[in-house]
Amino acid sequence: MIGHRLTSERAARAALSRLAEPGGSTILAERVRTVGAEDTLARLVRGADSVRGVHPEHYDPARMAEDLRVTERLGARIVIPGDEGWPSSLDDLEVPPLCLWVRGEVDLAEVHLRSVAIVGARSATAYGTQVATDIAVGMSERGFTVVSGAAFGIDAAAHRAALAVDGTTVAVLAGGIDRLYPASHAGLLGAIVDTGAVITEQPPGVAPIGSRFLRRNRLIAALTCGTVVVEASLRSGSLNTVGHAIAIRRPVGAVPGPVTSMQSAGCHALLREQKAQLVTDAAEVAELVGRIGVDLADPKRGEHRAIDDLDPADRAVFEALPLRGHTSVADLGRSVGLAPLAVRAGLGRLELRGLAESDDYDGWRKSRPERAPRLPLGDGLG
Amino acid sequence: MIGHRLTSERAARAALSRLAEPGGSTILAERVRTVGAEDTLARLVRGADSVRGVHPEHYDPARMAEDLRVTERLGARIVIPGDEGWPSSLDDLEVPPLCLWVRGEVDLAEVHLRSVAIVGARSATAYGTQVATDIAVGMSERGFTVVSGAAFGIDAAAHRAALAVDGTTVAVLAGGIDRLYPASHAGLLGAIVDTGAVITEQPPGVAPIGSRFLRRNRLIAALTCGTVVVEASLRSGSLNTVGHAIAIRRPVGAVPGPVTSMQSAGCHALLREQKAQLVTDAAEVAELVGRIGVDLADPKRGEHRAIDDLDPADRAVFEALPLRGHTSVADLGRSVGLAPLAVRAGLGRLELRGLAESDDYDGWRKSRPERAPRLPLGDGLG
Repeated sequence: MIGHRLTSERAARAALSRLAEPGGSTILAERVRTVGAEDTLARLVRGADSVRGVHPEHYDPARMAEDLRVTERLGARIVIPGDEGWPSSLDDLEVPPLCLWVRGEVDLAEVHLRSVAIVGARSATAYGTQVATDIAVGMSERGFTVVSGAAFGIDAAAHRAALAVDGTTVAVLAGGIDRLYPASHAGLLGAIVDTGAVITEQPPGVAPIGSRFLRRNRLIAALTCGTVVVEASLRSGSLNTVGHAIAIRRPVGAVPGPVTSMQSAGCHALLREQKAQLVTDAAEVAELVGRIGVDLADPKRGEHRAIDDLDPADRAVFEALPLRGHTSVADLGRSVGLAPLAVRAGLGRLELRGLAESDDYDGWRKSRPERAPRLPLGDGLG
Repeated sequence: MIGHRLTSERAARAALSRLAEPGGSTILAERVRTVGAEDTLARLVRGADSVRGVHPEHYDPARMAEDLRVTERLGARIVIPGDEGWPSSLDDLEVPPLCLWVRGEVDLAEVHLRSVAIVGARSATAYGTQVATDIAVGMSERGFTVVSGAAFGIDAAAHRAALAVDGTTVAVLAGGIDRLYPASHAGLLGAIVDTGAVITEQPPGVAPIGSRFLRRNRLIAALTCGTVVVEASLRSGSLNTVGHAIAIRRPVGAVPGPVTSMQSAGCHALLREQKAQLVTDAAEVAELVGRIGVDLADPKRGEHRAIDDLDPADRAVFEALPLRGHTSVADLGRSVGLAPLAVRAGLGRLELRGLAESDDYDGWRKSRPERAPRLPLGDGLG
């Protein structure tokens, strides 16, 4: 099925994808933005306009019809700007895709609301694969869509981890929607189609070659709220994705690793050049790419403390309690701005956790550390 | 031997080190700065002045004489401000040491000219130990003195590496100069005394306990041009050294490691909080703490390229050469803004390196990659 009625604008965009390398021509993008794809195609084909890198002589209605048949046979759809399912975040790009071929039911327009690109080395180490998995799981559990490029190594680990915890994952291909690449990931890509989406700006049959990977990377960057590089050598293609993310002002995170590992050297270079924020886990990635104030990571602590689990009100009560002497429920209420009933309920919960204690006259104080051994006892020597 | 005539200022500073915890009293430091140690001591002992935390009742001339005998017996010396061997960088501290007990012939006044503190976890991993060793070796080879705290783990690895390559290394103790601590490092500390220096602000016999490690750390920070943390857990004492370094505006580097290692978590926290610069090797540490413009690290590259060695003019000529077709010397000159003679000289050098080739009509182009195999062949896919 084709997900939308085939308007001539849609057909024109698909046809233009055959006449020029998708993502390759700023001028073509500008023409389409200004007068629309239909007019642009018509003018190019009748020779009223010419654009460097665009080959109107390749225009072939039979080929167009065949493209649409292939698209339909694969259960794919062609999505264009203006469609409900168009990911408008792609419009941030200097050269947005003319259209996207999409397999899978995910609403791409929603991906940018809560998503992360997890990318990295194809020749990932066991360390990198593990960290990519951990981050993808954590991001999926936080409701983020995991976007990557379906390559070996980090990409595959990220997709697989998202699938494993029933998260949503989107793979962006560098070739045609009928060319599941790499071939040995056909099973993985099939699973992504079933629950997420596999997308590309390339028409059917197009081979995923060199420069198309680099242009594909801009879609990964633009589709997401931010990009995390898990492992990258100094000349990794992931650094190209980062360049695109920076160009369109998306946050970039990089995972550090052993300085002895060449697969972390690209991440370290990004961090040294302040092109990326150091991230060590999903909580920090969520803080980086998520909603401000909502996805804040807890600062790392040396050990878990009992008060870490308190809700804000109980924590305020705890902090208002004296260590020596005692204070009254009324005074606590005034101090933290809570009604006596709420203070009393909070004190009960604190007492249960061994964090507060009362004297015989309803005066309250913090429990002494020896009675609440999970409190930090100080450290930091040597 | 005592390296300097025992002036009464020197004796007074040593005596004051017995009456108050060295490094502990801002007010005592201020008194000494203002009126000198002799007057301060005299006023305190006769009760004309009193300073919180200073105990004039502990004044004991017999003990003073014994301290000096122990110092002499150990072959140590007492160094005070104004001595040629006084490390004046310590005066940057809010509470500089009253005096230093020093074993070893290193001129401490020179340490700050070219030195680095290498500190980190006592429970270092094999990874951290290796990196500390590599950095200490590289810094020693670059003529930097390696300063650390003689503790287990990173400290010991740094000292040992410096010794192994005949570098200079200085250990700063938290206890008395006669209390080589930890005891199992007596051999290491002896070797440091032989070629570098072991120093402390604590009088003889003083035990290295808790808070003295934290105060000792400020000397490590102040004595050096900068501090590098190789491994640190989230509550490591090394982070305390970093705090001191930041307070006196010394650069701080942190070595990243696996995000799965708690011994790197403190380093990652420093990097996330932008309290430290990420460093991966001695070249980057030297750039961070060394002389500006002299100790620049080469940016990391995936591979060395022939064009990396070109001077800027030759490089500009190279970049202006076409890969296909040929261009003339005159056109190249206009393109890069050089006189024809300069262009021709540059082309000659490029030709020698196999980077440029001419046709029979003095037209020039880049050599084909297969003829200059060290040229980058493209990369960055996926």
